[in-house]
Parts: sequence; structure tokens; C-alpha cells
Amino acid sequence: MTPHPQLNSNGELRHLLTTEGLPRDVLLHILDTAQGFVSFGDREVKKVPLLRGKSVFNLFFENSTRTRTTFEIAAQRLSADVFNLDIQRSSTSKGESLLDTIANLEAMDADIFVVRHAQSGAPYLIAQHVPPHVHVVNAGDGRHAHPTQGLLDMTTIRHYKPDFSALTVAIVGDIVHSRVARSAIHALTTLGVPEVRAVGPKTLVPGDMRPMGVRVCHDIREGLQGADVVMMLRLQNERMSGGLLPSASEFHMMYGLTPERLALAKPDAIVMHPGPINRGVEIDSSVADGAQSVILPQVRFGIAVRMAVLSIIANANA
Amino acid sequence: MTPHPQLNSNGELRHLLTTEGLPRDVLLHILDTAQGFVSFGDREVKKVPLLRGKSVFNLFFENSTRTRTTFEIAAQRLSADVFNLDIQRSSTSKGESLLDTIANLEAMDADIFVVRHAQSGAPYLIAQHVPPHVHVVNAGDGRHAHPTQGLLDMTTIRHYKPDFSALTVAIVGDIVHSRVARSAIHALTTLGVPEVRAVGPKTLVPGDMRPMGVRVCHDIREGLQGADVVMMLRLQNERMSGGLLPSASEFHMMYGLTPERLALAKPDAIVMHPGPINRGVEIDSSVADGAQSVILPQVRFGIAVRMAVLSIIANANA
Amino acid sequence: MTPHPQLNSNGELRHLLTTEGLPRDVLLHILDTAQGFVSFGDREVKKVPLLRGKSVFNLFFENSTRTRTTFEIAAQRLSADVFNLDIQRSSTSKGESLLDTIANLEAMDADIFVVRHAQSGAPYLIAQHVPPHVHVVNAGDGRHAHPTQGLLDMTTIRHYKPDFSALTVAIVGDIVHSRVARSAIHALTTLGVPEVRAVGPKTLVPGDMRPMGVRVCHDIREGLQGADVVMMLRLQNERMSGGLLPSASEFHMMYGLTPERLALAKPDAIVMHPGPINRGVEIDSSVADGAQSVILPQVRFGIAVRMAVLSIIANANA
Repeated sequence: MTPHPQLNSNGELRHLLTTEGLPRDVLLHILDTAQGFVSFGDREVKKVPLLRGKSVFNLFFENSTRTRTTFEIAAQRLSADVFNLDIQRSSTSKGESLLDTIANLEAMDADIFVVRHAQSGAPYLIAQHVPPHVHVVNAGDGRHAHPTQGLLDMTTIRHYKPDFSALTVAIVGDIVHSRVARSAIHALTTLGVPEVRAVGPKTLVPGDMRPMGVRVCHDIREGLQGADVVMMLRLQNERMSGGLLPSASEFHMMYGLTPERLALAKPDAIVMHPGPINRGVEIDSSVADGAQSVILPQVRFGIAVRMAVLSIIANANA
Repeated sequence: MTPHPQLNSNGELRHLLTTEGLPRDVLLHILDTAQGFVSFGDREVKKVPLLRGKSVFNLFFENSTRTRTTFEIAAQRLSADVFNLDIQRSSTSKGESLLDTIANLEAMDADIFVVRHAQSGAPYLIAQHVPPHVHVVNAGDGRHAHPTQGLLDMTTIRHYKPDFSALTVAIVGDIVHSRVARSAIHALTTLGVPEVRAVGPKTLVPGDMRPMGVRVCHDIREGLQGADVVMMLRLQNERMSGGLLPSASEFHMMYGLTPERLALAKPDAIVMHPGPINRGVEIDSSVADGAQSVILPQVRFGIAVRMAVLSIIANANA
Repeated sequence: MTPHPQLNSNGELRHLLTTEGLPRDVLLHILDTAQGFVSFGDREVKKVPLLRGKSVFNLFFENSTRTRTTFEIAAQRLSADVFNLDIQRSSTSKGESLLDTIANLEAMDADIFVVRHAQSGAPYLIAQHVPPHVHVVNAGDGRHAHPTQGLLDMTTIRHYKPDFSALTVAIVGDIVHSRVARSAIHALTTLGVPEVRAVGPKTLVPGDMRPMGVRVCHDIREGLQGADVVMMLRLQNERMSGGLLPSASEFHMMYGLTPERLALAKPDAIVMHPGPINRGVEIDSSVADGAQSVILPQVRFGIAVRMAVLSIIANANA
């Protein structure tokens, strides 16, 4: 993958493929724009005509009702026309290649593709083949990246903790398999967070993450100590079948976020989770529903940040 | 279930959960508003901006293309943004609880939830947990209630028979399992219909319905005699497998609405059915398509009454 | 089927059911209107309010994501409200008849039905039963017709080869099973194309097509010789199981469009295909992606021609 295929020659965001290597000013521009959309839900009419007449295609090769819906809402609030393609039932099942499918949709005057795919790199492949006026947003590709999740996490953190340069952020759980963790780490580093910790068992956290600027903590108490932000990851039960991986109850015993453990973090620490939560597994109900939880605000910021990304890329041709 | 969780402290309709206990003036306000929307289909442009910028979420935990479509049409005609959630494929299947799903959708700035659920009471549970500006419409919960069906039935009856206080209404079929029957009966009683009859075999009609103000007739001839309105219920073939229940042909022989039987009702009696009809089972084709049938007008009134309900509740916060 | 059930008494197009017998002036009016919509994709705002407030129902009894999406896009660009009915999951599976389903949707104030059905003639049946202000578009019925595909083919041909009276058109592949071929042939004949050739093996091309004004060529070299337009058909692999039919590789060897074979046609001949293409079966990749290919423009013209059809029929009541 070339260094910044997501920026055009003016350094503007044309596609959003990953938070890795995204310049700090581009990242801050997204967060600022998202901030402008946050208060939006309080307005009588929640729509703006920024993408009026544009066609957004949701191409979800991997099923995700939640993420698809947030993109659909974001695009509708920008007055775009949104088309959800039922890929499982479409021509791809007749043997059509991914690029042929994309070429056909382009010919239908698609302006933006929102792509989720089980294979890492699929959105890159698409971005390399679309014409100058077409844009691609990665809505999650394999274990690689989930940049709008990373950006909504940053929007949330900045809302509660405006000074990134003073933060300690603990990311807890299955780091190895998580595109959410990866996208957050790249953004946190770029935004100048001095201490990012990856917390979890050796089977779920790489031994050495210093090249990424991350401190590894296999001990949950050490990981949470003095943290400003605790980002819990979802335990992917469906991936936990391997013999070396902890069971749900083992994970809860060793790494689950209980009120006692949360007390190790700063008193005003915020608790985040990308959802859907497994109550009693990676997080206790009393914490998920507690005063420090910002899990539902994350969802709200998720709409705002997706509106920001869609409206920004729509203005940056190749 | 608390008595009127669907009204706010001003007595306005905030949610629509059931027709049971719905005050007469609220009921009539819905019917009047629906009446205003009826002629709508004749207009060149069928849209009004009453819900512009509002987000309506169709949450159908139980499949029903027909009812979902009527709500989608009603919401679109009010200029709302409508989101159909494919619940079978969503996070609920990843073990997320109903209330967590709802909380997440709320965070996406949902304004109205239209809920169908196989479990009685599910829409009540949701209504108890949404914030003041969010509204819930029950689109059918288990065997309990289907209030918009009950209200469209009342709109239809009033259109043809304006004086409720002079009517005899016969409801024929599987009363025991029918949320349609239940919702109609509560509305008819409140609107002052002096004689409501439940007509069907002992296996499908409770022995004593006097507490509900309903007269039980196991004999179809007695049930139809002099009726102004004949409401046929759909025979749920899928539920008729039990040994004590009549087969489709037995049901037709004993209770099917034939021209001969319809002749027992008043000459200007109207024939209703919630659809889809089983021709030759609960109703003969010649009756379904005959001059007294108002089955298709019911569908048209169904759009109008759903427009009425959505526009009324949207103006009544907690 | 009556001769022109798709025209009203003023000779205007009220339904689009087939290109067979469609008068030349009506056909040209569609092509002219489509031409006006072609440049549309370049505009900042791609929407026009021609169908504002109209309800278009996509009734796809046979699955086709591609065709359904193009109709959805076309209707949205005309500002219509579009409803996609998931027929597989709807009341028809509860035993409701096709005409009862249609009657119900009519009662919901449907204005236009776009119908795809595995059974030839289904759209005719519907067109015969809708009220005067309702319109039907055939989006493919069995092996019978696919008129919007035929019309988009004509729009494409006219764009590159404006004088129909000077053309030689070769249609190559499975003519026998192809509603695409049938719809194209009727339109080409009406538009005055002097030579239309059906090219393929005896098992896939009828022996004598002179009554349709078509010359049969079982030899691919003879078929392509001097052609201005080469229309390849999709090899329906799913139908190729019969023992007498060629396999994919046999077909490619005998009739696949290679660069060498294409060289037999005129040097400026255009290559068409309805998609999705089977690369290496009926067409080589180098031809599909080559300078003479107009396969992707066909898709673009497909949106324009569907906008044309929808806007034209909406103005022609019975």
C-alpha cells in the first residue's frame, strides 16, 4: 500500500482508508468538522443540503447492521441519496469480480462508496481504480482498519479530555485481532497522546508494541493505573474458540472492567467501548451504565464524524 | 403494565401501545386526523413536511412486509427519514439486549420507533426506557395488541357508518389468538358501539367475554343476524395444526363468509378483513370482491391512520 | 396478449411491457428523452422533481440486485418515493395471489409498479388489472421480454452510430433463452436496422428467424463480418447443464469474442454486453476492457433510459 493514497495532491482527504499516517492537520480538520455536527441532533430539522444530489453506495460485503445504519443516517442527514446493496444476493454471486461490480456502480454515477469487506485491503483496491471524482470510505476491512471508529473515538475523547498531550489511554482486550484498536492507536499517536497502553493476555496482545509507540501491560492493574481514558474492546466470542484463548468467564476474571478495577484509573477517567457490549464479560453492567461511561455518546459522535468524513471527501477530487 | 403509559401528563398521545383504555377524545382525535389524510392519495404531490428531519426506525423483530411497508409509506409521506433495520441480521443476534439496541439507536437521534415483536409487552418495555422526546408505536406485539390495525378498522367503519352508537359489529374467526380482534374490541367499546359480537367455535372464542362488553356467538347465523359490520379475521393456517382446532375446510363449512350467510346481516352491512385473505377459507371470493367489501379501502385508511398517529405523537413529549 | 396494451387511446405509452410492436415514434420519443437525461450525471445536483410525490414500487419476484438498483436510482433522481418490496418474505408466501398483492399495494396509492417475474406475461396480467392512473414497467419476465434493457441498448447504439438505417448488428450467444435478445431485435427492426444477425450454435439459435427479420449465422466469422455493432449475450451458466448445450470452454472456443474475431467486424464497431460479463467465456478481458467496448456506457444509459420511461408513462393515463 502506498503511503497516503487517501490524500490528493493538495494534501486533502479524498478517500478515508486508514488512520495510519493520516496527517495531524487532516485528522484535526475531521474532528473540528465533526464537532460542528454534534449539536445537530438537537435541531428541529436535522438535515443539511451538503450532499444533495450525491449518491452514496453502502457496499457491505461483510454484514454489519449497526455500522451500515450509522453511515446511512449520516448520508441522509447530508441529503445524499443512499443505496444499500445486498451484496450477498447480487451479481458478485454470479461470479462477477469486485472491480467489475465497482465499475458498474460507477457507471450509475456513484459518488461515494462506503465499503466493508472481510479482506484487508479491499477498500484500497477499490480506491486505486475509481475515477477522480469518486470517493471511498473504509467501513472496516478484515483485521486491518476501521478508521471511522478510530475517528469517533478521538472525537469522544477530545469532547471530554480536550488536551491530548496530557493523556494516558488504556486499550483493554483483544488487541491482536482488533481493527478498532489499530485505528485508535494510530490516531492517538498522531494526536500526541504521550502514553498509550495495550492491556491484555499474551495471547491477545503482541509482546512488543514499542514500534507503534505503545506500552504493553499484561497486568490489568498496571494497565489501568492512573489512566484518563479506558477503551474496552469487544470480546469476539466467535473467535474465542481456539484452545489457547481465554473463555469469556476467564477473560472477565482477569481483564473484565469491574468498579474496583476502574477505581485504579483517574477519578474522572472515561470508559469507552465500540459496542455491542458483552455485559459481564469485558465490562460489568454497573460500569457500562455508570457515570464514567461514554459508550452511548460514542454512538452519537459516530454519526457526526461520519457526516464530517463524507462532507470533507466529497470536496476533494484527485 | 401501568394504565396509560401512552399518554403524557397533558393527556396527549405520546406513544401508541394499545387501544385498551385509550380515552375517547384521543381516539376521536386520531380518527379526525386520519380523515384529513384520506383524500391525500388524490393529490398531485402526496407529501407534507410535518415530520421533515425526523428519523423513524422500523424495528420489526417479527417479519411483516405489509405492515412495515405501510408505516414506511406513511412516514415518507410526512417527509420523515425512515430506516428499516434488518433485526434478524443485526447485533441482537450477537447477544445484545433489546434495551441496549434501543439505547444505541436513540444515540443515533431516533425520534420514533415502530416496533413489531413476537413477545407481548415488548413495545411497553421500550416505551418505559426512551427519553422524553422519543416515541414508540406498537406495530403488533405477540397476541396482545395491534393498535394501528384497530384504528384503521375504526376509521373504515366511521367512513361508512358514521354513528357508532347505532351499530352491531360481528367479529368472526380466531378471536383467542388475534391481536387484531382485541385492538378492535377495545376501540369499539370506547366509541360506544352497543353490540359487539365474537363469533367462532369454542376452541377459538373464549366462553365468556362479558367483562369486555362482548357477546359470544358460537353459531354463525346468530352472530351475523342484523349486523352492520362484519369483521372477518384471517385464519392463521400456521397455528391450525393443533388437533382440537378446525381445518381450513371445516372452518369454511362452519364459519366461512358465504353470500348466503352475509344475507343474514343488514342489507347495507360492510365486510372487513385485515388481510391477507384466504379466499375460500374464511371468506368466499364473491364476498371479498363484492359490493359490500371494504377490504381494500381498509388498506388505504391504514396509510392515513398511520400518518395520523405518527404526526400526533411527534408533537407530544413527556 | 392484445396488440398494444401498453399504449393508451391517444397512442401514448402508459405501461412499458415489451418492445414488440412498440411504434417507431414512441420508441424514438423514449430515446430522445433518455438522451436528455444522459448528461445528467455531470450535473452538481442530479435530481429533478418530475416524479415528486409519486410512489414507485419495485416488485422483484425474481432476484436482480443490479436491475432493481438501476430502477431505484432512476426513480430517486426523478424525486419519487421508492419502495423495495421483499417479496420472498411477504404475504405472497402466505398464499396471497399476485393480483391480491397488487390490489393491496394499489390501495396504498402506488403510482408505478416495476415488476420482475420468472413467469412470462406476469407484468401483462398486472397491467390488465390496475386502475387508469397506475403504470406498470416490465423489468424482465421469464424468457419473454426485458424492454428497458432493449431500450438502453438502442440508446447506446444511437449514441455511437446515429443512423440506424445503415447498420449491421450481430447478436451473439444464447438467443433462444434470452429476453435481452428478443427485446433488442424488436427494437432494431422497428428502428429500421437493415441487417440483424443472430449468431450462435444450433442449440442456442432458432433455425429460421426470417419472420422476425433476422439472419441466422451459426458460423461466428460469418456473423461478425462487417458488423457495426456486436452485442454479446451473457452465457447463463446455470442453464448450461443440459447435455446438448456447450460447456463454457466449448462456447468460448467456438463463439467467444476474441480480438481476432472482433477484427472481422468494422474497425469502428462497438462491443456491447448486458452484464454481468463472464470474462474468458463469451468475451475476452482484452475486448471487454478494450477501446471498442461500450459495456460501461450501457450501464450509464440504462439509468437515463429508465428515467425516460418512468417520466413518460407517469404522464399517460388510460
